[in-house]
Amino acid sequence: MPVLVMKFGGTSVATPDRIRRAAKRVGVEVARGYDVIVIVSAMSGETNKLVGYVSETSPLYDAREYDAIVSSGENVTAGLMALTLQEMDVPARSWQGWQVPVKTTSTHSAARIEEIPTDNINAKFGEGMRVAVVAGFQGISPEGRITTLGRGGSDTTAVAFAAAFAAERCDIYTDVDGVYTTDPRISGKARKLDRIAFEEMLELASLGAKVLQTRSVELAMRYNVKLRVLSSFEEQSDDAGTLVCAEEEIMESNVVSGIAYSRDEAKMTLISVADRPGIAAAIFGPLSDAGVNVDMIVQNISEEGRTDMTFSCPTDQVLRAEKALADAKARGDINYHDLVADTNVAKVSAVGIGMRSQSGVAAKMFKTLSDEGVNIKVIATSEIKISVLIDRKYMELAVQALHDAFELDKAA
Amino acid sequence: MPVLVMKFGGTSVATPDRIRRAAKRVGVEVARGYDVIVIVSAMSGETNKLVGYVSETSPLYDAREYDAIVSSGENVTAGLMALTLQEMDVPARSWQGWQVPVKTTSTHSAARIEEIPTDNINAKFGEGMRVAVVAGFQGISPEGRITTLGRGGSDTTAVAFAAAFAAERCDIYTDVDGVYTTDPRISGKARKLDRIAFEEMLELASLGAKVLQTRSVELAMRYNVKLRVLSSFEEQSDDAGTLVCAEEEIMESNVVSGIAYSRDEAKMTLISVADRPGIAAAIFGPLSDAGVNVDMIVQNISEEGRTDMTFSCPTDQVLRAEKALADAKARGDINYHDLVADTNVAKVSAVGIGMRSQSGVAAKMFKTLSDEGVNIKVIATSEIKISVLIDRKYMELAVQALHDAFELDKAA
Repeated sequence: MPVLVMKFGGTSVATPDRIRRAAKRVGVEVARGYDVIVIVSAMSGETNKLVGYVSETSPLYDAREYDAIVSSGENVTAGLMALTLQEMDVPARSWQGWQVPVKTTSTHSAARIEEIPTDNINAKFGEGMRVAVVAGFQGISPEGRITTLGRGGSDTTAVAFAAAFAAERCDIYTDVDGVYTTDPRISGKARKLDRIAFEEMLELASLGAKVLQTRSVELAMRYNVKLRVLSSFEEQSDDAGTLVCAEEEIMESNVVSGIAYSRDEAKMTLISVADRPGIAAAIFGPLSDAGVNVDMIVQNISEEGRTDMTFSCPTDQVLRAEKALADAKARGDINYHDLVADTNVAKVSAVGIGMRSQSGVAAKMFKTLSDEGVNIKVIATSEIKISVLIDRKYMELAVQALHDAFELDKAA
Repeated sequence: MPVLVMKFGGTSVATPDRIRRAAKRVGVEVARGYDVIVIVSAMSGETNKLVGYVSETSPLYDAREYDAIVSSGENVTAGLMALTLQEMDVPARSWQGWQVPVKTTSTHSAARIEEIPTDNINAKFGEGMRVAVVAGFQGISPEGRITTLGRGGSDTTAVAFAAAFAAERCDIYTDVDGVYTTDPRISGKARKLDRIAFEEMLELASLGAKVLQTRSVELAMRYNVKLRVLSSFEEQSDDAGTLVCAEEEIMESNVVSGIAYSRDEAKMTLISVADRPGIAAAIFGPLSDAGVNVDMIVQNISEEGRTDMTFSCPTDQVLRAEKALADAKARGDINYHDLVADTNVAKVSAVGIGMRSQSGVAAKMFKTLSDEGVNIKVIATSEIKISVLIDRKYMELAVQALHDAFELDKAA
C-alpha cells in the first residue's frame, strides 16, 4: 500500500482531545488506503518545561543528558496517539527513536539523521498494522545514547521518514493553515501562499519563520519530498495549506515572497582583536566546536593592527559562546580586549527567488527602514535574501513597513 | 570500590531543588569511597498525570503503550540527577532501562526483572564514573519493547541492582523516616520501628503500607539485601530509618508489629454461580489471564447447586475483571446470574511474626472491631497476618482501634 507521512506539532497534540482529533484525520487517510507513518511532537509546553528544568539544573549542560531528558515528551504523545488509534479500531503501535532505530550522528542536541532502516516498521505493516506512530525529534547515536535533532526536529523526522519509505507525500499539521508572507500576528495584511519554493522556504525557516525546521526543508529539497503545511484545526480540502515544492512548479511569484524575523538573536562583539591572518578561524573554530550557531559576521575596518569583530548567534547560546571565547583567550589562541553581548536585537529579512533576476531589492529595503528611522546594525545577504540586525523594539515596525513596501498583500 | 544503591522516590525528586538535595547525599557517599548506583522515580505527580492521560484515552488500554508512556517520567529525573551531580563535579551519567539493559518478562505493566547485566555500568565505573543514575520502574522485554514493573516498581529496580552488583546496602530514600506501626496520618500514636523482618514487611507492603513495593521486599529477602528505609528530608545518622532484615536479626518484637490498610480494594460478587468441580478455576483462570490481582476469596454455602463467589481486587482492575468474566460467560465457560462490584470497601490487616507462636490474635481483632460496631465482610489470614474487608467509612476507626488494642505505641 502507498505510504503517507503525517506529522502533528505540539499544539495539535496538546491534549487527549486534540490527539483524538488528529487521530481522526489519520483514520481518514487509512480509510483511503494508505499505510500511515505518524510523527508526533511533544504536547505543547512539555519540551519548554523540560528545557527549563535542564537550564535550572545546569546552565552549561551535558548535551547527552539534555537529549535523554527533553526527548521524553515525544514518547508520551506517541503512546497516546497509538492508544487513540487503537480505540478507533485502527491497528497502530508506537515507536521510540531507538526502537526504529533512527540512526543519527553523535552531535547531541543537533544530531543529523544518518539512516532509517525500514524493515522493522515494514514488517509490522506486512502483519496488518496500518499506522506506525513515531516519536519525532529523537534518534540514537552510534554509542547507543539518545540524541535529539534540535528544536522543531520533528519536521525533519517526518521528512526523513517520507524519504526513507518513499512516501507519496509528507503532510505537516500545525497550528497555522500554511506559510504566510509574514507572521499574521505582526502584520494584519499577511497573506497565505499556495506554493513556495524549497529555496525560499529554506531561507524563511532558517530566518525564524517557525513553520518548518530548516533541516526538514533541506532534506525535502534533496529527496524531492512533496511537503505540505496545513492546519490541524480546520476541515481540510485536498489542496489546503501551502505546498513546498521545486521552483519549476511555481508559475508566478513576487520578487519578494516573504518577510521573516527572529527575536532570538544576540549580537556579540569582540573588541580590539589582533587583526592577523587566521584570526577568523581562531575565533570561529572554537565557537563551532562549542556548538554555537554563528549567523552573521561583520569585521570592522582595522586600525593599528586591531579590529572589532561582530557576529550574531541565538540568544540561548550566548553563555556557551562566551565560555568558548574565554577558553580560547586563556589558551592564548586569541587576544581581545572585551566581549560585549547585546541581546536586545532582532533580525528581519526579505526573501524571494525573484531577487535572482531583479535588482534594487536591497536599496528599497534600506530606504524603507531609513524612512522609518530604523538603524541597521549588521547586514547579511544571499542570492535570495537580505537580512538586517536592528534594535528589537523596531522589529514589528520594520516587518510591517517592509511587507507594505514590497506589496506582499497582493498576489503576483 | 564497594557499591551502594540509593533510591529516591517521587517526593524526593519532585523539583530541581529537591534533586539537588538528594544529589548532595549521593555526593557524601561518593566521598566515603562508594561507587553509587542511584535509582530514581518520576517527579511526584508525573506518573499520575501520565496514567490519567492513558485512562482518558483508552480505558482498556494496550499495556505495551501504557508502559511506553508512563516510563517517561523516570527518564527525565535520571537525566536531571546526572546533570546535578555533574554540576557538583561528581562524574555521573544516566541510564534508561533499555540501555543497561534491565531485562524483564513481557508481562507489561507488571513485568519481572529477569537479568541485569553489570558489564556496561561496571565498564563506566572502571573509566572513573562514580555514579550511575538509573531510571527506575522500567525495563525491556525480549521483544524489545519497554516494560514497567508496576506502581512502586522503582523499589524493585533498586533491590535488583543491589543484588546484581552485590551492593553493600540498598538505601530507600522516601518522604517518611521509616516504617511505622501504622500510617501516622491515621493514628497519632503510630511509632517508628527500628527493625522489621522481611516477612512482616512483605505482608505490610502487599497490604497497602505504601513504603515499599512488595516485589522489592521479596527480592531483598531472597538475595539477603540489606534494605534501609529513610527520609530524604532529614539529616541522617548512620543508623537512621528502619532496617528491613532477617527475622534472626530482631531481638524483641510485639506479637503484632503493624496495622496496614488499603483503600483501593473492590469487593466483587458473582451471584448464583453453578457450584461444580472446577468452577473456581473457570472463574479465576480468566481473571489471572487478564492481569487481575485477586486477593481475598470467599465462597458462600451452596444451595441447590448454586453459590455466590466473592473476591477482592484493586479498584482500578474492576473494569478488566468485569470484561474477563463477561467474556468467560459468553464463551459458556461459566454461568452466573449477576456480577456486583462494591468499591466502597477497605482492607485492614494486623501483621506480626509473633502470631506464629501466639494464639488469640484473630479473636482479639474481631472483638475490637465488633466493639466499635464495624461489620466484617470478608476475612483472610496467613501465618503472620489477618485481613478483613470492611465498609470504607470505618477504615480509620478500625485502624485506630486495632493500634490501641495491640498496644503498638509501646515498644516490645
